[in-house]
Amino acid sequence: MLSINNIKLVNSLQLKKQRDKSDLYVIEGDKMVREYLTSEEEIVWLFAKPEWIASLPGALVERVPNIIAVSYDELKRISSLKTPHNAMAIVHKKKNPLKAESLLNGLTIVLDSIQDPGNLGTIIRLAGWFGIDKIICSHGCVDLYNPKVLQATMGALLHVVVHYTEILPLMGDARVMGLPVYAAALEGESIYEAKLPGSAILIFGNESKGISADLMAASTHSVMIPSFGNRGAGIDSLNAAMAVAVVCSEFRRRSLPGQ
Amino acid sequence: MLSINNIKLVNSLQLKKQRDKSDLYVIEGDKMVREYLTSEEEIVWLFAKPEWIASLPGALVERVPNIIAVSYDELKRISSLKTPHNAMAIVHKKKNPLKAESLLNGLTIVLDSIQDPGNLGTIIRLAGWFGIDKIICSHGCVDLYNPKVLQATMGALLHVVVHYTEILPLMGDARVMGLPVYAAALEGESIYEAKLPGSAILIFGNESKGISADLMAASTHSVMIPSFGNRGAGIDSLNAAMAVAVVCSEFRRRSLPGQ
Repeated sequence: MLSINNIKLVNSLQLKKQRDKSDLYVIEGDKMVREYLTSEEEIVWLFAKPEWIASLPGALVERVPNIIAVSYDELKRISSLKTPHNAMAIVHKKKNPLKAESLLNGLTIVLDSIQDPGNLGTIIRLAGWFGIDKIICSHGCVDLYNPKVLQATMGALLHVVVHYTEILPLMGDARVMGLPVYAAALEGESIYEAKLPGSAILIFGNESKGISADLMAASTHSVMIPSFGNRGAGIDSLNAAMAVAVVCSEFRRRSLPGQ
Repeated sequence: MLSINNIKLVNSLQLKKQRDKSDLYVIEGDKMVREYLTSEEEIVWLFAKPEWIASLPGALVERVPNIIAVSYDELKRISSLKTPHNAMAIVHKKKNPLKAESLLNGLTIVLDSIQDPGNLGTIIRLAGWFGIDKIICSHGCVDLYNPKVLQATMGALLHVVVHYTEILPLMGDARVMGLPVYAAALEGESIYEAKLPGSAILIFGNESKGISADLMAASTHSVMIPSFGNRGAGIDSLNAAMAVAVVCSEFRRRSLPGQ
């Protein structure tokens, strides 16, 4: 049964301030909780229906210090979803210090002030799909542990490391290392025609303001997704996550043999 | 000033049943309302702040039979947004009978039971960007005039015609006309390697169930977006709108000279 303190703890973690202070966050959904249990993440609390807990292999149950069997009505009191699933968990944030040298190995997505939680979560899911294991967020981005972000990742956070940092100094490191930096913009070379290397930084900007001027200046290439429609008449941009989908797809296609 | 009847009318149009009955729907947001005013759509009511109305060219004002100047607090009473913009409008639905022959001309997106309003709206925006002017929805899809769908289109509905119909008979027409039908699935030929023609039907399925078995059987090609990540370990699909972004981008790239 849920204690008042359990309820207080879960509900407090709806707030970024409390997540920052405690280094904890909440995940929801049967599939995601199960994936976290089978991963190396540190699960501190598990709240789930008794039959759901009973369905878990013993080894997964043993590794969680605090397991509380709850009813559907109790889940409703702590869930951020209208219709809660069978399980929720509280997870300890993993520390992932960013090493500039790691950027030399493969593609890295840099996000400049992505505000929409659904967009950030979807971009993490895309990165997972396209095998891009590093995302770097400016401090102006929405919090990674926002419940809506986590929900949209569909568990991809287990395969993608997301860092928050000042972006501009990193651009200095990239320049020193000779790493190409591609800004996804509304103008520039067509993504279909540009030379796309296997290791690079890809910058995507804020939903309405795009990439900030200093980051644009620090990038080595500017690429755009050509519009095939009647652009002047209304559709003046793609959604940020859509732009990530197209750009990452095109980078990955080029890495295939015969392409 | 808003009358009780104005408020009742706008609020009733939150419901699909009322939208179906009256053939009316509501759009919100300064940019979208302005684009609709400059289009050939039939705007029946305009609710906006006096200074916003004053900023419109006279010809745009004259074409709207009912214009009501409202305060911010009044807009809040009829808006579906937490923070309303300066303008809302009620639009008469356009009738667009679907002619099977029109499918022979260019790409057509077919959606099988897309449920999420944000996905449908984003797919319409993508279609607009990639110059695909026809989308055909199964009756199982979310309603086009749902406020969340319209919000996500960002006005692209002015450039894309969306039909609702039974899909299966249409597949029969496609077969008779010799039109290729591509199903976007989790298995099939890689989208990067498949032959992609300039005129075709592209089918995308429901967020969790994918494309229904009878539509899969009626398609002539099955294509998939290769995963570059550790797919077995968790990320087992892309979001529906993401898949549309990648597939449409790839179809359009192939139409470019030299590709």
